[in-house]
Amino acid sequence: MWYNEGMDDDLASKWENSYSDDARVLTRSEIRTLFAVVAEHPEVVSLAGGMPSLDQMPFAEISKVLADVVAKRGAELWQYGTAQGDERLRELVLDICKLEGVQANKDNVVLTSGSQQALDYITRLFINPDDVVLCEEPIYVGAKGIFASYRADIISIKMDGGGLIPELLEKTIIEQEKQNKKIKFLYTVPNFHNPASVTLLVERRPKVLEICKKHGILIIEDNPYGLLSFEGELYPSIYSFDYSEDSEFSNAAENVIYLGSFSKIIAPGFRVGYAIAPSAICEKLVLCAEAATLCSSTNSQMTLVAYLENFDWMKRINLFRKSYKERSYAMITALEKYLPECTFEVPHGGFYIWLKLPEGVRSDKLLPYAFDAGVVYVPGTGFYADNRGAEYIRISFCYPNSEEITAGIKHLKSAIDNYKKQEALK
Amino acid sequence: MWYNEGMDDDLASKWENSYSDDARVLTRSEIRTLFAVVAEHPEVVSLAGGMPSLDQMPFAEISKVLADVVAKRGAELWQYGTAQGDERLRELVLDICKLEGVQANKDNVVLTSGSQQALDYITRLFINPDDVVLCEEPIYVGAKGIFASYRADIISIKMDGGGLIPELLEKTIIEQEKQNKKIKFLYTVPNFHNPASVTLLVERRPKVLEICKKHGILIIEDNPYGLLSFEGELYPSIYSFDYSEDSEFSNAAENVIYLGSFSKIIAPGFRVGYAIAPSAICEKLVLCAEAATLCSSTNSQMTLVAYLENFDWMKRINLFRKSYKERSYAMITALEKYLPECTFEVPHGGFYIWLKLPEGVRSDKLLPYAFDAGVVYVPGTGFYADNRGAEYIRISFCYPNSEEITAGIKHLKSAIDNYKKQEALK
Repeated sequence: MWYNEGMDDDLASKWENSYSDDARVLTRSEIRTLFAVVAEHPEVVSLAGGMPSLDQMPFAEISKVLADVVAKRGAELWQYGTAQGDERLRELVLDICKLEGVQANKDNVVLTSGSQQALDYITRLFINPDDVVLCEEPIYVGAKGIFASYRADIISIKMDGGGLIPELLEKTIIEQEKQNKKIKFLYTVPNFHNPASVTLLVERRPKVLEICKKHGILIIEDNPYGLLSFEGELYPSIYSFDYSEDSEFSNAAENVIYLGSFSKIIAPGFRVGYAIAPSAICEKLVLCAEAATLCSSTNSQMTLVAYLENFDWMKRINLFRKSYKERSYAMITALEKYLPECTFEVPHGGFYIWLKLPEGVRSDKLLPYAFDAGVVYVPGTGFYADNRGAEYIRISFCYPNSEEITAGIKHLKSAIDNYKKQEALK
Repeated sequence: MWYNEGMDDDLASKWENSYSDDARVLTRSEIRTLFAVVAEHPEVVSLAGGMPSLDQMPFAEISKVLADVVAKRGAELWQYGTAQGDERLRELVLDICKLEGVQANKDNVVLTSGSQQALDYITRLFINPDDVVLCEEPIYVGAKGIFASYRADIISIKMDGGGLIPELLEKTIIEQEKQNKKIKFLYTVPNFHNPASVTLLVERRPKVLEICKKHGILIIEDNPYGLLSFEGELYPSIYSFDYSEDSEFSNAAENVIYLGSFSKIIAPGFRVGYAIAPSAICEKLVLCAEAATLCSSTNSQMTLVAYLENFDWMKRINLFRKSYKERSYAMITALEKYLPECTFEVPHGGFYIWLKLPEGVRSDKLLPYAFDAGVVYVPGTGFYADNRGAEYIRISFCYPNSEEITAGIKHLKSAIDNYKKQEALK
C-alpha cells in the first residue's frame, strides 16, 4: 500500500528462522499502518477509526471520585488481583447484561483486557490450525486478525439487511461437515455490526441458536454496541434464548459465550471487557488468563466500579446515543447530498456505515486520492478473509463531530471524482 | 491436593471434545488454588504469595496528582492507545533500564500487561510444540505455566550459589543438539531469582551470552527484582554485554530480549511491564499485542507516567529495599533460631528464600500440617517441570511484616514437628 512506503517492511533479523508457525502468519495490519500515518496529519478527516467520543464525560467530577478511591483504597487498587477479575465488577457486569436478557452467576464472568482479549483466549482454547470458524461476511477486522493468528479456516457467511440468514448458515455448516471440517464456533456481532451496521432480526436469533445447537456448534456472541441504539431500543441477546435456570451443567447458557466491553459504553482506556461462559469453559478461560498475564489491571477494574457506583452511567449512555445519532444523520445527509450513487444500509445504532462505492471504484486504489483530498476510511478488503470487498469502505461517525463528518464526505466526493478522471486517462 | 477437595475439579461440559490441543494442557495451578483458600483464612500467615508490600506508598499525595491528570487529560487516559504503548512511558522505561546497562531506542520497547504477558507473546512467537526452552532449575512458576501452555519441552539447568553454571549450560545445549532438538531460547532470571534467590555472578554473564551466541540461542533476560538489592548494588544486565551502538540490525542488543516490570518497583495493580527487543522481534511483539488485545491500558500507562514524573520513585525504591531487607533478616533470624536443620542461600535482594527441608520431609505432604499450624508456603514441586523439588519450599518475606514472618516460621517449626510425629506413627 502507498502508506506503507518508506517503512521497514522487512526488518532484517538473525532470528528469522526461529519463529513459530503462528508467528509467521502475523503481518502488519494495513489499517493500523494507516492510523499511524493519519496521526501525523491532523488536517485529514479520519472516518477510519473506531474510537468512541468521550466528549460527554464529566472528567472534572470523575477525578474527584477517583482521588477519593485512590487515597482510601490505593493499596488494593495497586495490588495484584485475581485472574477472574474483581468480584464487585463482575456483579455490575451482570446488572448491565441483564438489560439484554443475559443472566448468569458472577462465577461465570471473567474480566479481560477488552473483549478482544476474551476472543483471543477463546480462540486459543478451541482452535487447532485448520479448524473452522464461521463468521459473518464482512467480518470485524480484529476478530479476523485473531482467527488468522491461530491459523483457523475462516468461513464467512453473507448477510442481508437483517443480519445472518439462518438458511445460509445451515447450508454452510452442512457443506463444511461434508468436507469433514471441524467447525469449532460461530462468531457473530448481532447488534449494529462492525462494519456492516446491520442488526440480526430478533426472529432469526432463536433460529441461529437452534441450528448451531443441532450441529454441536458453540456461538460466540460479541456485543460491544448493543446499548448504543439511536432510539434506545434493546434487542434480546442470542444468549437469552439459550439460558435456562435449571441447566444441567452451568449457571449460564450452555451454547453461547457472550462477550461485552466497557470500551464503547464508558471508555476504552481501561481495557476492560468480559466473557460470560458455561462454567467449564469459564474455568478454562481463567486458567488461560492466569497463564498469560496472572491477572488484569485491578486499578482499571476498581476505577470502573467507582465510576459505575458513583455516576448515572445510563444517563451517560443516553448522551452517547444522542451524539452518535446526530453524527450518523450528518453522515447520511452528506452522503445523500454528495454521493447519491453510493449505497448503504441506514444504521440504527453503533459507529459505522458500510458504503458501497460507485461501480468500478476500488476502495484500496481510491485511498491515496482520498488522503490527498483530506479524508481517510478503511478499505473494505480489511473485512474479508480473502481480500475481496474492494467495492466497499467502512466510514465511522463515532469520533469526528458533525461538521468534520460533512467535510469528510465532501472530500470523499472529490477523491472519487479525481479517481475517475485519473483512471479514465489510463 | 488436600486444598482442592470439595472443588469441582472436573466440571462437566458438553464442549469437552471441542478444545484445542493447547487448551488440554491447561490445568489449575495448585498455588493459585492455595491462594484462594488462604484468602478465606486471614488467621493463617501466608509466606506463599509474591505480592509486593505497598506500605511505603503515599496514596494521599498520589491521589491528588492523579485527580489533576484525570481532570486535565481524561479524554486521553480513557481513550484507546497504540499496541506498542505510550511513547513517554517507553522513554521513562529506558531511563530506568539504563541503571542496569540496558540501552536501546524507544522503538525497541513494547509495553505489555505485566512482563508475564511479554513472556507469553515471546513464547507464542517462537515456540512450536516440542521446541526446547532452556531454563534454570528451579524455574519461576509463571514462566513454567506459559511454556507448558505452548507445549514447549522445558529443559532445566541446575544452578549453584552463583546462578547458572556456564559449563553446565553448554553441556545441556550440546546434549539437546545431539538429539536434534530445536532450542529456541534460554529463559533466565539473573538477579535475586524466584524462587532460588541466587544472583548470576557478574563474571558468568558474558560467558552465558557467548555460549548462547555460539549456538544461535536467544536469551530472555527477565529482571523484575534487579533494583531491589538490599544494599543498593546494581549488576550489569546480560543485555549490557550484548549491546553495541553500531549494530547491523537494530538499536537494541541482538541476542537478548530484556523483560522488566513496574510490578515490584512501583505497584502491580497497573499490570504494566515491558520487553526490550531487537527491531524485527519488537515489531512481531507489537503485532502479537495488536491481534490479542488491540492495546494495553492507556489509563494505567499514563498514571505511571504521572507517578514517575511527579514523585521521587528512586527514594521509594530505596524504602522498599530497606523494608525487604528488614523482613528478610527477620526471616533468616527466625529460621536460624527455630529451624537450624533447614538450609538455604542467604538472599541479597528480591522476595524469597528457597528452603531445603529436613531430610525425609516432603513439602507437599507437609502443607496440611502447616495450614493447621497457621502458616502456608509454596511447595517446591511447583517450580519444577517434572514434579521434583519436594524437598524444598518457597517462603516469601515481601508481604507479611517482620512479626508475622517470625510467627510464620514458628508455625512452620510446629508443622514439621507434627509431621515427623505423625509420619513416624505410620
